Amino acid sequence: MGHAQRATIADVARRAGVSKGLVSFALNNRSGVAPETRTRILAAASELGWSPSVRGRSLSVGRAFACGLVIGRSPDVIAADPFFPAFIAGLEDAFSVSGQALVLAVATPGRHEAETYRGLAADRRVDGVILTDLRVDDPRISLVAELGLSAVTLGVPGGPSPFSSVCSDDGVGIRLAVEHLAGLGHRDIAHVAGPAELLHAARRRTAFDVAAAELGLRSTVVETDFSAADGARATATLLGAAEPPTAIVYSNDSMALAGMGVAQQRGLSVPRDLSITGFDDTEMGRHVHPSLTSVATDVRGWGAIAARTLLVAVAGGAAEHITLPDPRLVIRASTCPPLDTATSAASLEGD
Amino acid sequence: MGHAQRATIADVARRAGVSKGLVSFALNNRSGVAPETRTRILAAASELGWSPSVRGRSLSVGRAFACGLVIGRSPDVIAADPFFPAFIAGLEDAFSVSGQALVLAVATPGRHEAETYRGLAADRRVDGVILTDLRVDDPRISLVAELGLSAVTLGVPGGPSPFSSVCSDDGVGIRLAVEHLAGLGHRDIAHVAGPAELLHAARRRTAFDVAAAELGLRSTVVETDFSAADGARATATLLGAAEPPTAIVYSNDSMALAGMGVAQQRGLSVPRDLSITGFDDTEMGRHVHPSLTSVATDVRGWGAIAARTLLVAVAGGAAEHITLPDPRLVIRASTCPPLDTATSAASLEGD
Repeated sequence: MGHAQRATIADVARRAGVSKGLVSFALNNRSGVAPETRTRILAAASELGWSPSVRGRSLSVGRAFACGLVIGRSPDVIAADPFFPAFIAGLEDAFSVSGQALVLAVATPGRHEAETYRGLAADRRVDGVILTDLRVDDPRISLVAELGLSAVTLGVPGGPSPFSSVCSDDGVGIRLAVEHLAGLGHRDIAHVAGPAELLHAARRRTAFDVAAAELGLRSTVVETDFSAADGARATATLLGAAEPPTAIVYSNDSMALAGMGVAQQRGLSVPRDLSITGFDDTEMGRHVHPSLTSVATDVRGWGAIAARTLLVAVAGGAAEHITLPDPRLVIRASTCPPLDTATSAASLEGD
Repeated sequence: MGHAQRATIADVARRAGVSKGLVSFALNNRSGVAPETRTRILAAASELGWSPSVRGRSLSVGRAFACGLVIGRSPDVIAADPFFPAFIAGLEDAFSVSGQALVLAVATPGRHEAETYRGLAADRRVDGVILTDLRVDDPRISLVAELGLSAVTLGVPGGPSPFSSVCSDDGVGIRLAVEHLAGLGHRDIAHVAGPAELLHAARRRTAFDVAAAELGLRSTVVETDFSAADGARATATLLGAAEPPTAIVYSNDSMALAGMGVAQQRGLSVPRDLSITGFDDTEMGRHVHPSLTSVATDVRGWGAIAARTLLVAVAGGAAEHITLPDPRLVIRASTCPPLDTATSAASLEGD
């Protein structure tokens, strides 16, 4: 396994007549190197046959050239939720062009999650991490800061955070869904929410409560773990009530599709007997019958922006707070006016 | 960021009175170290406060303590296919307990795929890789061997391979689906296949062709890229034919669910007018209406076994060839006898 002796950064620095630090900066695409100098350094590196051995770079400048994503949900939920594959594809859109590796771990909260972060940091396997599924009083913020890792959070944490954030105002999407249903004449709606300890699930629920109250709607909320199975159970509970809702706003598409199955199983016609909205605008929602009205966010684009924001942080940039364009509501065939409510739809306008 | 001086493997070796190599073996859980010696080494390591710095270990014994998975499909297909999240969860079931990191990359074939493997090997980011979606004349087998990486293939490659393999006989599952439909009386069935260049898709197709021929059925095959959108298009093509099939066997659940949507959209009732079977037995298939008859394989278990087999290879074990238990057919509500074919069902028994 012997290698020919490789040119080092010191060799490149000597030939270009600059400091080793400047060579590192230039080769790592950091700002602050004059274009002419950068060209001279790259020419010297090329003449010497210097190649960007990541191991070499990581030893010389203390960087791993890798970023981590620790997914803190149960594997069952991950398997059923199209969010993560789309998000990871977006991360790779950015990481692959900049030579970064993505280190992935699945650690259900409570199952070595903290140890997983400590392991990534102690062994310097990664330079930074992407924190998804922020929780109320999220212990990962201080843990990751203490470990000296860079980070970017998806969404704005509930407490103080030194990290950059990339967020999408999910509440806007839920409000659009509620307004759409109210506009169709629904007065009795329900929300199948994600886990209350996840900030984005809680914010979607709050947006639902606020919009329903402002529009004078009767509303119910059932909490789930975001899985399709739990979405099905929640739907059965809602439809089994004495006065079931005429519309259900789901916090993700997987649960909405499972809920649609439960309604149809009971002989209800969607949307005639029950209107349904999802969240994430997944490909499957476009293909089922009736096709699913859903809140659309650009999950893959979100991944790419989160990755680029993390790389800026790793390179020493100041914390940034990026808000994505507001989600849209894509209206398809799973929503329509409720039966026998032309009059209540009219009365709504007086609210 | 200064660290207190860490105990090295040499320090541990001195205190335990053994060679550094033996310390490495013992600390890496390799076989061949006498239990008593291993105990003495671990005690010495513990007394000296030696901690298993992965970076340290990787420099001293040339190992990265990480494994790689390069997913060679388009991000759209990955986002719609529940296989990868379930498979990754299985990999993590095994890797997380043995302190291995999983390095993930998405490289659509043709888009720097080979460079991605070269990068993982040249920088020794990983000790081995898991090769999924084997292709006809797969160039990755010789590439990965040449790069000196360990590997395990999912399925048996078409050509010679030095690597361990873990395979599932998908053909058995497809045959069960065809036999089930023929048993119900279907004589005209179609297969919505995955891409012909993927070995497992090709094997499923061959199993379909053979079973249909043996049972004397009329059959059609439409090839797709495995995406739900392509599954929908293939279904529209089949149902638009002069003599449409009465049953369709899909090569994955995503396409089956999309196909069900297309049929329902055209006013057909599933299963009365069209029976449908999927492959993978995903959670979503259990919750839609009608619930999906599907071929069940243990994807998560497959991931765990592939990970453990790879770790054996990384540790220098001989190549192993493991075959998983045969897939089962889970019969649900999306299949029933075709309309007006009680007689043809009876005639089948004479075949």
